[in-house]
Amino acid sequence: MNITEKILSKKVGREVNPGEIIEVNVDLAMSHDGTSPPAIKTFEKIADKVWDPEKIAIVFDHVIPANTIGSAEFQKVARDFIKKQNITHHYTHGEGICHQVIPEMGLIEPGKLIVGADSHTCTYGAFGAFSTGMGSTDMAMVYATGQTWLMVPEAMKIEVEGKLPQGITSKDLILNIIGKIGIGGGTYKTAEFCGETINGLDVDSRMTMCNMAIEMGAKNGIMEPNEDTLSYVMKKTGKTKNQLNILKSDKDSIYEKEYLFDVNDLEAQIACPNDVDNVKGLSKVEGTSIDQCFIGSCTNGRFSDLLAAAKVLKGQKVSDDVRLIIIPASKKVYQEAMNKGLIQIFMDAGAIICNPGCGPCLGGHMGVLSENEVCISSTNRNFKGRMGDSESEVYLGNPSVVAASAIKGFIENPENIF
Amino acid sequence: MNITEKILSKKVGREVNPGEIIEVNVDLAMSHDGTSPPAIKTFEKIADKVWDPEKIAIVFDHVIPANTIGSAEFQKVARDFIKKQNITHHYTHGEGICHQVIPEMGLIEPGKLIVGADSHTCTYGAFGAFSTGMGSTDMAMVYATGQTWLMVPEAMKIEVEGKLPQGITSKDLILNIIGKIGIGGGTYKTAEFCGETINGLDVDSRMTMCNMAIEMGAKNGIMEPNEDTLSYVMKKTGKTKNQLNILKSDKDSIYEKEYLFDVNDLEAQIACPNDVDNVKGLSKVEGTSIDQCFIGSCTNGRFSDLLAAAKVLKGQKVSDDVRLIIIPASKKVYQEAMNKGLIQIFMDAGAIICNPGCGPCLGGHMGVLSENEVCISSTNRNFKGRMGDSESEVYLGNPSVVAASAIKGFIENPENIF
Repeated sequence: MNITEKILSKKVGREVNPGEIIEVNVDLAMSHDGTSPPAIKTFEKIADKVWDPEKIAIVFDHVIPANTIGSAEFQKVARDFIKKQNITHHYTHGEGICHQVIPEMGLIEPGKLIVGADSHTCTYGAFGAFSTGMGSTDMAMVYATGQTWLMVPEAMKIEVEGKLPQGITSKDLILNIIGKIGIGGGTYKTAEFCGETINGLDVDSRMTMCNMAIEMGAKNGIMEPNEDTLSYVMKKTGKTKNQLNILKSDKDSIYEKEYLFDVNDLEAQIACPNDVDNVKGLSKVEGTSIDQCFIGSCTNGRFSDLLAAAKVLKGQKVSDDVRLIIIPASKKVYQEAMNKGLIQIFMDAGAIICNPGCGPCLGGHMGVLSENEVCISSTNRNFKGRMGDSESEVYLGNPSVVAASAIKGFIENPENIF
Repeated sequence: MNITEKILSKKVGREVNPGEIIEVNVDLAMSHDGTSPPAIKTFEKIADKVWDPEKIAIVFDHVIPANTIGSAEFQKVARDFIKKQNITHHYTHGEGICHQVIPEMGLIEPGKLIVGADSHTCTYGAFGAFSTGMGSTDMAMVYATGQTWLMVPEAMKIEVEGKLPQGITSKDLILNIIGKIGIGGGTYKTAEFCGETINGLDVDSRMTMCNMAIEMGAKNGIMEPNEDTLSYVMKKTGKTKNQLNILKSDKDSIYEKEYLFDVNDLEAQIACPNDVDNVKGLSKVEGTSIDQCFIGSCTNGRFSDLLAAAKVLKGQKVSDDVRLIIIPASKKVYQEAMNKGLIQIFMDAGAIICNPGCGPCLGGHMGVLSENEVCISSTNRNFKGRMGDSESEVYLGNPSVVAASAIKGFIENPENIF
């Protein structure tokens, strides 16, 4: 069996097979300021008390602080619910993006089954957990019962070998993978990332990859936890290795499809408008004029991402023709970046640093694009109109490429800055 | 003659008298992301080139980064204008609130005549300048001709004596004054603040008072520049005292009305919903339940304001029932606050720190209130619906009171925190 099948089998109490519909108890249910209110509305029609207030986490990240009366009302509904139901894990004071805050708070462990009312919930697969997104109505049922149903997914084995060249990141790798597999190529499948390259990635880089599993339609993204991941989890949860449910895929696991990627010669990758699988090598799009640059999001707003951007931006100035918006993924990330001088570097360069949260990624606020404007962004989606007007365009790249582009005013290779 | 009459007389080249309509050349015309686009639209109907690109300043502060497609389009209009007209002084990359950035950049001097397409343009009276707000259509005429018309205002002499008690600020003083004079009591008049207390105020405190002159309807607020102010101006402009046009009111100046305030026993003042002159002593409103606290704005978002708030918040936690939003008035203020550890104190306390700008003051984004929510704010206006829903309420106070209230979840005297 592969990791995903092992986790699901353990939850059901017997061996499960791909294609089978199962009912499972969830270990954690996450929702945010956008999805909690509709989930709460449905929940209140079917139950009075949540199944377990200690297993629900609510994070405000999509539009915080509230940008309209409507979003303020949504947040009020969620706050009232948190209070009435005594929800233990609530992060409503700008702690950051759910997918960064939940692991930081020690709520993620290998082998756990986590559902979230957000499509990028697949991020936690980086820790060897089964985690997947769902809609608010499904979340209402989870609030009430602690259970949900799933079809056991077929699995894709995505093996990666080789050493990432200098300046090439796991973002480039996942974009390269999505470019090959396609946005529909992984629909309802497990994307299991493995191989020497994956085993060598740090936690931040692993999260970036599992985060984007949904961009090829995957039900979940998952990796065997490596030492770096286990150290992180032990530190955050206070548990020893023996207390964790560390699962690995059997050598004879069956996969519906197997892919092999070699990264030794990988160049920086850019997802071009208007699909995440419209991926080209950076050299093919260098020189493309831009209006806005964004570094942040649950994909690439972590400390290592900011550090990479700071190395490019140090002593440089953002082009007067573009605006550079930088948003740390969490308050902890912000504080580390501040204490290590990164925020100062960004400000000196002319960047705008906003409070932790999703920012302009989904076009809600803090950098909405007008007609015909072009943005290069470290985020995860470049769908038509994603960041604003339907005639605006978004290119996706790694944080260093975004930083270099901000300096030049067009898409640029960071190597040309140093 | 009083200072205002002296400035206007010098501009016209002869002695002018209250009630007289005059045409004047302006020394600086300021507009922001909200008011520039309509001014530009009108300007383009009447002229091709601005009168002097070095005497126009455009600052993006009201909604930055853009929170809607509409605000993004507005900003694009302003950016294109800046480029096309070669506007020298443009601050579109999150430098901060216009009324803080313009003095920081050395654009304000005593004796100058400044107009701004923002009602709080009266702030620069703190430097002994004549400055007043106007609408976008009038600003279009200024862009084109460098001229505008004014009625020479009658003057109110607002003399203040005594020593502000510990913890009582110029915000409390100006609220106290507005409470007495009323929101219509100064309509189209000069509010000339003078006396020993005013002479002893630092630049930040002086700006807070002149900023709010408009809240009693005044055409301008003004103070004779004191030594602290002159040091500030000399540092920012690089000019010597001899190069500045320092004007003082003659002893025999004629005032339409004279007021005398004594601050020796002044308690902290709160402007209660829904008018700025609905002012009560803090003791009368202590215990009022709140949902949101905001420290920032062109009134009280400067370093000394943040320092006062940090003294209250150090080692404390914001109540889980409220959110505290803190927005430094400018990037320079942010950097000073960061370098002196204030941002860390705010984050540790649980505050949300947003990028410099107007923030939720005018209900545009970053903390909009929903129905029945209550906010205590260091800002300048508490009109019905100012910060969001028409059934929300805003109380105005000094930054320490806002900070203390954030800790308790109700309006609180900072003395009860220490």
